[in-house]
Amino acid sequence: MEAHEKGFFTEENSVEVVTGRNKNARDERLKQIMEVVTRKLHEAVKEIEPTQQEWMEAILFLTRTGQMCSDWRQEFILLSDTLGVSMLVDAINNRKPSGASESTVLGPFHVKDVPELEMGANICLDQKGEDMFISGRILDTAGRPIEGAVLDVWQANDEGFYDVQQLGIQPQFNLRGAFRTGSDGRYWFRAVKPKYYPIPNDGPVGQMLEHLGRHPNRPAHLHYIIKADGHETLITHIFDPDDPYISSDAVFGVKESLLADFRRVRDSSRAKAYGFAGEFWEVEYDFVLARNGEGEKPAR
Amino acid sequence: MEAHEKGFFTEENSVEVVTGRNKNARDERLKQIMEVVTRKLHEAVKEIEPTQQEWMEAILFLTRTGQMCSDWRQEFILLSDTLGVSMLVDAINNRKPSGASESTVLGPFHVKDVPELEMGANICLDQKGEDMFISGRILDTAGRPIEGAVLDVWQANDEGFYDVQQLGIQPQFNLRGAFRTGSDGRYWFRAVKPKYYPIPNDGPVGQMLEHLGRHPNRPAHLHYIIKADGHETLITHIFDPDDPYISSDAVFGVKESLLADFRRVRDSSRAKAYGFAGEFWEVEYDFVLARNGEGEKPAR
Repeated sequence: MEAHEKGFFTEENSVEVVTGRNKNARDERLKQIMEVVTRKLHEAVKEIEPTQQEWMEAILFLTRTGQMCSDWRQEFILLSDTLGVSMLVDAINNRKPSGASESTVLGPFHVKDVPELEMGANICLDQKGEDMFISGRILDTAGRPIEGAVLDVWQANDEGFYDVQQLGIQPQFNLRGAFRTGSDGRYWFRAVKPKYYPIPNDGPVGQMLEHLGRHPNRPAHLHYIIKADGHETLITHIFDPDDPYISSDAVFGVKESLLADFRRVRDSSRAKAYGFAGEFWEVEYDFVLARNGEGEKPAR
Repeated sequence: MEAHEKGFFTEENSVEVVTGRNKNARDERLKQIMEVVTRKLHEAVKEIEPTQQEWMEAILFLTRTGQMCSDWRQEFILLSDTLGVSMLVDAINNRKPSGASESTVLGPFHVKDVPELEMGANICLDQKGEDMFISGRILDTAGRPIEGAVLDVWQANDEGFYDVQQLGIQPQFNLRGAFRTGSDGRYWFRAVKPKYYPIPNDGPVGQMLEHLGRHPNRPAHLHYIIKADGHETLITHIFDPDDPYISSDAVFGVKESLLADFRRVRDSSRAKAYGFAGEFWEVEYDFVLARNGEGEKPAR
């Protein structure tokens, strides 16, 4: 028998030899995924030509990344986020029809089953930061208001932390809430102007960013999950376009269409009506939901 | 400003946006490596089009792989081994000149500073397995014997375990030893016929192999590190060509040129001379070392 008949590995046939072992894989999808992963991995190694030491550094980086993970920290998701993989997977799975609002990453700080609040409620429970009034409509792609849509909102506080990052320091459900639209599709609530903040950067991913000369900050944003019967759930943010990091989000979450207009309001009668002490910020943003099946999904 | 001027991420420009952030990387090599890693990673994601659930399964697989690692276990090296990456890195870093012996992976069971033994010593200290006599020469690529070459050998015992996997069960330095050649470049020693054995398969990599319908076994082999002044160090194995797993090594370490000839010897006078009770195996194999700088190295 010749070497190639026995399937011995060489630099030239490496992909075929490795993927050729998967003939009896449990399912076709796994076999397909491992074919692509193996091929791209070998292409990368052949292009990089790592030294043995560089290979070992990569092994140890991945090991540290796994060992940084705990119930409270997912360092491999941070790695995926900071290499643009999370946003790419989000983009592939959320190809919206024309006119529908775009999605962005969920992030690690969503909390299930937050209290449903009365429209207009102030979700800021720690009295920190600059007052903000947020309003808009939930519409379908034909421009019709959606009744009974539930808008689940969360944001970091004025110091750049979510409540779940400061258990016992911030009040529970600080800067979180759910609101249900009426027949006009309108929503409105009170909060504080968000601030930029760093992703957790005391682990391997933080070191990677430092070595790459990258900062760890996410520009100021509010998170939303918007659900309505008969419509595709929308997971997204809105961003402050004047944030210093708006063009360099550490996790690549910003999209042009998600830039909101944060206006400074000096109107003492409106401030009084909202219970604000003086000047405040105002943001108006309409969300457009695709109907179920209206978006373009990956072929599978 | 247009979206692309601000560097916002899209499915189309994902690679350029992510790698464009590395302008201030600590060094050019790191920047180059991350450019390739990011591009190949995004190519893989775009080709696979993972669902959010598949992405999460990948995240959790990598996390479990990191968390399986300990002082005694390196699961990411096993992953690299079983995907052919370790052998590829070995091949790239050990392009030998014509006539020199080929390398293969070091593996995790080498021990530093093993005792140097007298030529002919029996390295089998646990009295298990079938006796074997191994001999050959250490040569340079011109066919001249190398004097003072040190051959460091190790192998698994008759039950498929290395001594360091069975501390307190096997004698220390069982089936290990170092031998130094004289002016004729010859080496010879006694051992036992090696057996195939599984790589550690009680972790995430073992599960991966199972899902891919792959066995975890390495065909029977002896490990060598051969060092000589003025020559490139050779890290390699020799393999038993009759092993049932010779064409399906779980870590792709087999090369045609590393198949040795394991002969059964029925010669009671030779057996007696070696101190063997009866029939034994004989292997003769010459190693050829490249002179320093004789091999082709990656461009860097």
